[in-house]
Amino acid sequence: MTLDDPFNNPLFNAIDWTPTGLVSCVAQQHDTGEVLMVAWMNREAIRETLATGRVCYFSRSRNRLWRKGETSGQVQRLVELRVDCDGDALLALVDQVGAACHTGRRSCFFRAARDGVLAVIADPIADPAELYGHSESAP
Amino acid sequence: MTLDDPFNNPLFNAIDWTPTGLVSCVAQQHDTGEVLMVAWMNREAIRETLATGRVCYFSRSRNRLWRKGETSGQVQRLVELRVDCDGDALLALVDQVGAACHTGRRSCFFRAARDGVLAVIADPIADPAELYGHSESAP
Repeated sequence: MTLDDPFNNPLFNAIDWTPTGLVSCVAQQHDTGEVLMVAWMNREAIRETLATGRVCYFSRSRNRLWRKGETSGQVQRLVELRVDCDGDALLALVDQVGAACHTGRRSCFFRAARDGVLAVIADPIADPAELYGHSESAP
Repeated sequence: MTLDDPFNNPLFNAIDWTPTGLVSCVAQQHDTGEVLMVAWMNREAIRETLATGRVCYFSRSRNRLWRKGETSGQVQRLVELRVDCDGDALLALVDQVGAACHTGRRSCFFRAARDGVLAVIADPIADPAELYGHSESAP
């Protein structure tokens, strides 16, 4: 029973899929430990990610596979894919080129509850207009 | 507009709640960067977490607040709560006592796609029977 078995895939069997066949995936920079983003994957996105070593998600807003960085160039190379105990979340250890966030920030988690307010705690490292051709395009 | 404003809470406003009023939350050990678990929060869980400094989730299976560690003693102290760009995920930086996972492992992400199989990559650090009074109780 191996991961390339189309009929009895142990990773797919371990996942508690949503009714629409998705599972959430946390992307973490493999060496620094920084949590970069959370997105969705379906079976095809997982298959492609494992086969190519480049992280592919499923975009709910566009209803299609989303090869991270396909527009922005900010790709994620897969280091390892893990699954949690109850199968409703994946953890992708990745090597992120540039900014994971569509705002041009390294991480999507750039707002924090601090001192009673919601504070912006990170600046963009890239210009979204250059990454996407216009400002703050949705991912 | 502060975080303890019950009518115009900037964190609540930033969250893209599910239809049942939930948002997923990634828990990360604040100093080592280890991703420990992913669970759900509702407004009340977030309010309590920020007010007490002890992480509280919402258990979908039990349909009630779940004060992490209430049975097992494996509590999480909150260091910082962050929200992502599109508001559908939180990141809780925590200080985890012992095992985050109900299997007695430090992290719930103890299975990895390696060498074509799904490999168990971490051993329990605590006995679930001692944590919960019986083996591998659901969280």
